[in-house]
Amino acid sequence: MKLFKIADLEEVIKVLEEQKQENIYDEIPIEESLGRILFENIMSDINIPHFDRSTVDGYAINHKSVNGASEMMPIITKVAEKIKMNSIPEKEIKIGESSYIPTGGMMPKGADSVVMVEYTEKLSENDILMGKTVSPLENVNSIGEDIEKGELVLEAFRKIKAYDMGLLAALGIKNIKVHKKLKVGIISTGDEIIEYYEMPLPGQVRNSNSLSLCGMTERAGAVPYNFGIIKDDEEEIKSTLNEALSKCDIVLISGGSSVGERDHTISAIESIEGSEVLIHGIAIKPGKPTIIAKSGDKMIFGLPGNPFAVLVIFRTLIEKYINRFSEKDKFITALFDTNYHKAMGRSEFLPVKLEERDSETYALPLRVKSSSVAVLAKADGFIIIEKDKEGVSSGEKIKVYEL
Amino acid sequence: MKLFKIADLEEVIKVLEEQKQENIYDEIPIEESLGRILFENIMSDINIPHFDRSTVDGYAINHKSVNGASEMMPIITKVAEKIKMNSIPEKEIKIGESSYIPTGGMMPKGADSVVMVEYTEKLSENDILMGKTVSPLENVNSIGEDIEKGELVLEAFRKIKAYDMGLLAALGIKNIKVHKKLKVGIISTGDEIIEYYEMPLPGQVRNSNSLSLCGMTERAGAVPYNFGIIKDDEEEIKSTLNEALSKCDIVLISGGSSVGERDHTISAIESIEGSEVLIHGIAIKPGKPTIIAKSGDKMIFGLPGNPFAVLVIFRTLIEKYINRFSEKDKFITALFDTNYHKAMGRSEFLPVKLEERDSETYALPLRVKSSSVAVLAKADGFIIIEKDKEGVSSGEKIKVYEL
Repeated sequence: MKLFKIADLEEVIKVLEEQKQENIYDEIPIEESLGRILFENIMSDINIPHFDRSTVDGYAINHKSVNGASEMMPIITKVAEKIKMNSIPEKEIKIGESSYIPTGGMMPKGADSVVMVEYTEKLSENDILMGKTVSPLENVNSIGEDIEKGELVLEAFRKIKAYDMGLLAALGIKNIKVHKKLKVGIISTGDEIIEYYEMPLPGQVRNSNSLSLCGMTERAGAVPYNFGIIKDDEEEIKSTLNEALSKCDIVLISGGSSVGERDHTISAIESIEGSEVLIHGIAIKPGKPTIIAKSGDKMIFGLPGNPFAVLVIFRTLIEKYINRFSEKDKFITALFDTNYHKAMGRSEFLPVKLEERDSETYALPLRVKSSSVAVLAKADGFIIIEKDKEGVSSGEKIKVYEL
Repeated sequence: MKLFKIADLEEVIKVLEEQKQENIYDEIPIEESLGRILFENIMSDINIPHFDRSTVDGYAINHKSVNGASEMMPIITKVAEKIKMNSIPEKEIKIGESSYIPTGGMMPKGADSVVMVEYTEKLSENDILMGKTVSPLENVNSIGEDIEKGELVLEAFRKIKAYDMGLLAALGIKNIKVHKKLKVGIISTGDEIIEYYEMPLPGQVRNSNSLSLCGMTERAGAVPYNFGIIKDDEEEIKSTLNEALSKCDIVLISGGSSVGERDHTISAIESIEGSEVLIHGIAIKPGKPTIIAKSGDKMIFGLPGNPFAVLVIFRTLIEKYINRFSEKDKFITALFDTNYHKAMGRSEFLPVKLEERDSETYALPLRVKSSSVAVLAKADGFIIIEKDKEGVSSGEKIKVYEL
């Protein structure tokens, strides 16, 4: 067994960033784009709006026509036309004239602003009293004001949100290129691990990590493939690993955390032809025995068995890799609720519960034993205490990453 | 046309809560449960762990055997057995004895603690030096410590997270009851609205709201059905609304925001047999002309055409309804970056951009015209300024709801 230096979390992220798979894409209809990662920059080939439009129901005028108008001293304008929603105004507006215009209606020639209907009064079919001055462009959404032709609208590597779909529709775009959904193979190892629907004997443990990993994979926008439970045997691990590598882009092996099991996983990975172990051990707690390797352009992650370690490794490394490092970390700022001491030289993760008190958000650390499956259901998020820190003090401001 | 009192946002939420559809469920395998809403409480019918297990690789002993042991003064114990992962220990440990135990291994009778392998040294196959004292239960995960038999593990109305799936697996649960996924019909109205893949003439606007609403519906965990664009005609709206109501649980009609269009939508809703308008007008900006009605146990939402209004109404009302009001509001606390004045008597929504500065998060409001489709792509979230407030001051602490 080769000896590897334990890597810092930041180094690991850098190594992973260098490996990111980014040259494969799908071309998909925008209807199916929610949560996908843009492969290309989206530029607008039109102005939005592509015509000057009113933002209110009212009367389109030249603003000079109502110079000095007020509720007490309204000014009369002659109605030139009643503009309809879906049509081009026919009449040009002159000073002293106005055309009724609905919200979204096209501004007539000669008009530069709209007086809201609330500030007008019909004297007759043709005469309208206006009780308010307007400035040029008031209540008008002018050509290209929202989006200019040629403008960069959405950048490559953006994860498409619901309203981005509306934006793409407004641009008249039918299909977009997005990064291919990665396929994630999930393997559990351990002689003591049994299927979750089996009844455990003393000494046996139900497989919970595979299902958590399937869920996290799905949530991250990749496609999980569950390869089940493999006995703690190098040859068996190797053969399932090879099968998973042939079908998936990423393979996750969640093992027991005993030394023996870790040895078999690393040996199996090293015995794969052309594989390269990039990371063997990370200076974090929990999650230290994590292995990261590649085989061609496929990635292999060897994870410890501890459910909280699996979660933090997935969230801080694997999810980022799946998302091609496209998303900024999202966190909530909270005040730490107690004093917590940790060892220097490694980063430490803690699950926390959030509490609102006196209009402040407090984060309370939850005690977690390495094998706990229940603590995460009680937690709202987790924090990372950086490796150079000795702990967190009560009242200290911290970043909480939501679960 | 009946006159309705403009309702406050809080009143509207209360009205919607009273309407929530909660008596229909699916029974699904836990593999498919991500993001679904629990219909039932989940109790554990087992202890986890169901046997006393070691949390480290080491030697199981009675703590009294290493009373006073230290690195300088180690104590020798006789090896009784080498316990394997997946098996029941055969030997009972007596004082002065120890059994090798792997992480996760079952504790032998007579042992109450584990000395980590790092603090031991093999003298011979049968004699182990122990250089550390341990307390009772040290490095042991005892029966029921993580989850006790009979314990309430997940509460009804919880939205299932990835690691909840692992927890359900650990409990040996195969199927769970979840609230049925709601079907959401989406209708756009307006004579000026054209399909997004068509080329707009002056006066015409591409339909962007339907796609945003499909995306938001999907993201919220419901199933969108797009009924396309309907001309601004009461009969046509009514017939499509009837069709959508026959197929869906919720129908969203996003209209132009002109008075004429609003009139047709409300008349069409009122003409549906047995329909009841619950809300007609909400004291919010944007989003005032929103209509909420019901027809039997189906809900109808009439939305204005403004994309930002559509987003805030969806996020503050429709998404909550879809989720059966199961989730707490998630927000980030930030400092407002400027002074903003608003009118009293209505709540106001503003899109904001977040900026990190001097380890504080600042929220910068973005100027938004009612028809803007681009502003949301630039925003990170939105804020709500409550109806009784006159605005927000620079430096004031505010809640930002992420987009």
